[in-house]
Amino acid sequence: MACKSCVEKPVIKLPNNNVQLCKNHYIKYFEKKILKTIRQFNLVEDGDHIGVAISGGKDSSSLLYILNKLAEKRKKVKLTAITIDEGIHGYREHTLKDARKLCEELKIPLYVYSYKEEFGQTLDEALKKYKLKPCSLCGVLRRYLLNKKARELGVNKLATGHNLDDEAQSILMNQIKNNIQTSARLGPITGVKEDKRFIRRIKPLYFLTEREVATYAFLKGFVSEFIECPNSGHGLRGDVRKFLNDFEGKYPGTKHAILNSFLEIMPLLRKDYKMQEIKDCVDCGEPCSQERCQTCALLNSLK
Amino acid sequence: MACKSCVEKPVIKLPNNNVQLCKNHYIKYFEKKILKTIRQFNLVEDGDHIGVAISGGKDSSSLLYILNKLAEKRKKVKLTAITIDEGIHGYREHTLKDARKLCEELKIPLYVYSYKEEFGQTLDEALKKYKLKPCSLCGVLRRYLLNKKARELGVNKLATGHNLDDEAQSILMNQIKNNIQTSARLGPITGVKEDKRFIRRIKPLYFLTEREVATYAFLKGFVSEFIECPNSGHGLRGDVRKFLNDFEGKYPGTKHAILNSFLEIMPLLRKDYKMQEIKDCVDCGEPCSQERCQTCALLNSLK
Repeated sequence: MACKSCVEKPVIKLPNNNVQLCKNHYIKYFEKKILKTIRQFNLVEDGDHIGVAISGGKDSSSLLYILNKLAEKRKKVKLTAITIDEGIHGYREHTLKDARKLCEELKIPLYVYSYKEEFGQTLDEALKKYKLKPCSLCGVLRRYLLNKKARELGVNKLATGHNLDDEAQSILMNQIKNNIQTSARLGPITGVKEDKRFIRRIKPLYFLTEREVATYAFLKGFVSEFIECPNSGHGLRGDVRKFLNDFEGKYPGTKHAILNSFLEIMPLLRKDYKMQEIKDCVDCGEPCSQERCQTCALLNSLK
Repeated sequence: MACKSCVEKPVIKLPNNNVQLCKNHYIKYFEKKILKTIRQFNLVEDGDHIGVAISGGKDSSSLLYILNKLAEKRKKVKLTAITIDEGIHGYREHTLKDARKLCEELKIPLYVYSYKEEFGQTLDEALKKYKLKPCSLCGVLRRYLLNKKARELGVNKLATGHNLDDEAQSILMNQIKNNIQTSARLGPITGVKEDKRFIRRIKPLYFLTEREVATYAFLKGFVSEFIECPNSGHGLRGDVRKFLNDFEGKYPGTKHAILNSFLEIMPLLRKDYKMQEIKDCVDCGEPCSQERCQTCALLNSLK
């Protein structure tokens, strides 16, 4: 079997159909698909200053590389890379090295913010002291810090490396937790232009599976080693991930179907979803929906 | 550990919380929950002539018994039992016996319609001749026959024994098949009063899990033996069922959460769902959305 578009040896069979592609045609397919997503949902506009959340892993490295390609053509788009260093020993120091290397190569300014400096302790330290679900704690703190720092850097959109697998998992997880209104905050682009306090989020890798992104990152040599966060794979997300991978194997197209089903109801959910009034957190002043933001509430509970 | 409401030995631990109940209190809980569903969604009204689809299995037997209890109190509600005999050897003849016995005891008229008489062949015979997914074929034929016969019997609502597990499975299956618009036809009550050709469907067991219904049917001695349809457990529904049972075990409340998430979006889906024009099938004259109804299209393809 050869590549669908030439005589070269294929490197991947695409999900959802029987097409096989060689290295060069796969790279073209991948990049085209991202540009199509960007166009379709108007993720990037002239004048945008995009903060790219980069961990140094396969997803965010691929994302930064492609947004940079785009920014080289569209001169009115500016990029700034932002890394959050949670302090996860044996993991983050490696990906951080990859992130720095890529940003240097692409000549994109990189800003690194750490939990240690911002919150007084690393994630590892907090997990040693308190019995907490690592991803719940880490997710709250990372979202908080990304939004605050992006805003301080003058960024008007924050691009993240979320792929199709991540999104399908979140959709199902919200159903399983009977939390479907939270899904109104999913989708390829969230937030509103007028809101200067919650920076809009964009997900250009939205329609690419984890396997596709990993293949691209490998072919482009972005990631020196594929290491996973030691905290991942546990809990509900890990179990939902396994379920989706099992079903995708037996019923190809499962992940795309879950995503597309969601995209059909997303406008209905958002229309129905009453926008909550944005308040100032009594402790830190950051925007939030309650009296105290989730991060301060969490940090207070740990004192 | 004793029953939550008395000192008797418990027979079941309810899903979604830690409450245990003895036989008598469980039966009360179960019947009350059905009556609450009937009230909440206005499933039964004075003047209703309800066709009860009874297979003789645990779900429909429990359903018929409770609707009969209700009809004894509400004299303006009339019941007629309807059984579809697909001709599944080693299964249907047993449940049919149970169905006849229960209808005699309750003095409810029972009408039995068979695939053999209506379509010229049993399900077993059709499956021997054609390579078809049994549940897809059987589902289309059963829905067709139930609607047609219910209408001919002058029934204005058709009650089915679908439980919470069935519904949660259907919700997920529609997502996995990227068929979320089909979910607009799920829910505890479907159809509209004005439409005299598609008989409204009601599902009084909507909020009870399969295990709860099985426990009730066992305690009431409705079912002489718990046998499953030999065609069940296969394909997508079987796999989704296993997934839901696994997750319910690890994350109690999963099934309820999926149902409740769906109930939140159901009104949005239905509002968005354009009602298709109802046509007459060119072959049989039954109501349908295409030129030819699904049943005739299917039967024609088998010729």
